[in-house]
Amino acid sequence: MKEATLKEIAEKLGISITTVSKALKGYPDVSLKTKDAVISLAKKLNYSPNSFAVNLRTKESKTIGLIIPEIVHHFFSNVINGIIAEAEKNGYLVIILQSNESLELEKKQVALLINKRVDGIIISLSNESNDDSHLKEIIARKIPFVQFDKIAKLIHSSKVVINDQIAARNAVQHLIDNGYRKIAHIRGPLNPQNAIDRFIGYKKALEINNIPFDASLVYTCEKVTFQEGIDFAKQIMTDHPDVEGIFAITDLVAVGVLSYFNDIGIKIPEQVAVIGFSNWFMSQVLTPKLSTVDQPSHEMGVASFKLLLEEMNCHKKEIPFTPRTIELETKVIARESTFKKK
Amino acid sequence: MKEATLKEIAEKLGISITTVSKALKGYPDVSLKTKDAVISLAKKLNYSPNSFAVNLRTKESKTIGLIIPEIVHHFFSNVINGIIAEAEKNGYLVIILQSNESLELEKKQVALLINKRVDGIIISLSNESNDDSHLKEIIARKIPFVQFDKIAKLIHSSKVVINDQIAARNAVQHLIDNGYRKIAHIRGPLNPQNAIDRFIGYKKALEINNIPFDASLVYTCEKVTFQEGIDFAKQIMTDHPDVEGIFAITDLVAVGVLSYFNDIGIKIPEQVAVIGFSNWFMSQVLTPKLSTVDQPSHEMGVASFKLLLEEMNCHKKEIPFTPRTIELETKVIARESTFKKK
Repeated sequence: MKEATLKEIAEKLGISITTVSKALKGYPDVSLKTKDAVISLAKKLNYSPNSFAVNLRTKESKTIGLIIPEIVHHFFSNVINGIIAEAEKNGYLVIILQSNESLELEKKQVALLINKRVDGIIISLSNESNDDSHLKEIIARKIPFVQFDKIAKLIHSSKVVINDQIAARNAVQHLIDNGYRKIAHIRGPLNPQNAIDRFIGYKKALEINNIPFDASLVYTCEKVTFQEGIDFAKQIMTDHPDVEGIFAITDLVAVGVLSYFNDIGIKIPEQVAVIGFSNWFMSQVLTPKLSTVDQPSHEMGVASFKLLLEEMNCHKKEIPFTPRTIELETKVIARESTFKKK
Repeated sequence: MKEATLKEIAEKLGISITTVSKALKGYPDVSLKTKDAVISLAKKLNYSPNSFAVNLRTKESKTIGLIIPEIVHHFFSNVINGIIAEAEKNGYLVIILQSNESLELEKKQVALLINKRVDGIIISLSNESNDDSHLKEIIARKIPFVQFDKIAKLIHSSKVVINDQIAARNAVQHLIDNGYRKIAHIRGPLNPQNAIDRFIGYKKALEINNIPFDASLVYTCEKVTFQEGIDFAKQIMTDHPDVEGIFAITDLVAVGVLSYFNDIGIKIPEQVAVIGFSNWFMSQVLTPKLSTVDQPSHEMGVASFKLLLEEMNCHKKEIPFTPRTIELETKVIARESTFKKK
């Protein structure tokens, strides 16, 4: 079918081409009546006011893809917030995909985004991701690419991270400084780098303070859930009734521990002190208020988009770009759940 | 510049056109080596393996737009989760935009999505939205369109909602059944329909139980935040020291109330009972555990996408579609913060 031009529509309605174009783009300074007339004539004439056509010419989609493990998650929803706020400022739209912690889904989603020809991709890896061929594919295609938080270290892309080892070491040091020495660690799964690094941080803090490492005090989450916090709290009290402190991989798990202890009447921190990680909103409203490590999630989103934008701009102008890693600061937030031992 | 064809690339590399096409689309059954060769030759020849070109032919983008007021929000992140899960099942990508409760931004975002030629739009309105010309524009352009939760009643689109009046009436009835009669209401802003409906539900419950309505017991949030919960709790205790119960527009505000009462030692529910709305995750782990109204957020997302898909399919086949409204069930979740008065 032959497609009509803006000029034809303008001539038939006796208005300017600019007005037709504005009407089709939804500009607010064209009346609804004119818009209706333009749209219905355009439809009749089979005119297609097409952003894809524009994209074909400019080879830019002004759209980026974001893949994260989970949306209903205080940390990730804050990162998304940072990314889309910064993207919007710069005229980019964000397609959001959720891998549900599945490597298979993550690979499929990368292929989808490549095929969709997004201008750039931001990823935080799923817990299952131990194969990086899909990430290599992004690099091979020279698509601007940023990894954040859960990253593949060996992939040569820009990265936005925290220092998980130091952050975890500080959390455990805080427990030790407040008088707790027999400390259990509820860690994340064996594969993700940040779970490994937080575990190393835990061990280092013990080492620095001459506390012997006891592998039986380490409990490994499969899914990193609230329920696992409850279950491991119970298990820890059975295995080590004399435990003095617990460091959990993330607040959600720590909240499970708190919830179990509150229900069965174990006093926090008098009997067991608890510290989490990430500073989820709810941590400040629990009883007792939960100590944690503040991880700048919104800033992480902003920094990730900014790095991506830099690379997209170089890509557009065919200027070489050298990937960079940005490391953001964390800090221990001391609250009631780790008050100094009396 | 002349663009190369798949055939040229295939001939030059001595492989089949299918392999070239698969390599460009990122199929896993083509080796990385072949992919690299295809991509670098395609780049050299200025070939553009373009999903936009496909889109131009099919006039489908397989992408929908979603506009919500806030992402860092337990209810909305659950809805998004439902929408993208269902979209993914059906081969659609979702562009997510956040209006930040601003009508101006919401209008701009609708224009963006129209211009981007998404196949459909799902919206939950910002608190400011009291002008619906941008929604009329979506209808005028015959773009498949679903509103959920915060809707413009008079716009003739599909809708996925709960019955806010009945849900709120049930929440207040629960307080009354448990022995609390002097009940304050911390309501949402004056404009959004769901805030109006929950307020009407509150009034109806009082009326049914022959409790005179007292306008001085109603407090109006501007932003519906945790901080407003704290501030209004303080205000209520000053204005009405004999208040027996509080019904808050949403759990986030109720958690502010709880937090303030816990801090200054007001016993919940012995001195004041508290009920929220929406069943945020944290409500079950607070001390005391917060009673609330369960609102099926994930299901709301799934239902919204399903309705949109139905309309998109009709649209594609040029079959007329009549917008429908789906009303989902809610229920009161009774927890410690509203235990029966002794």
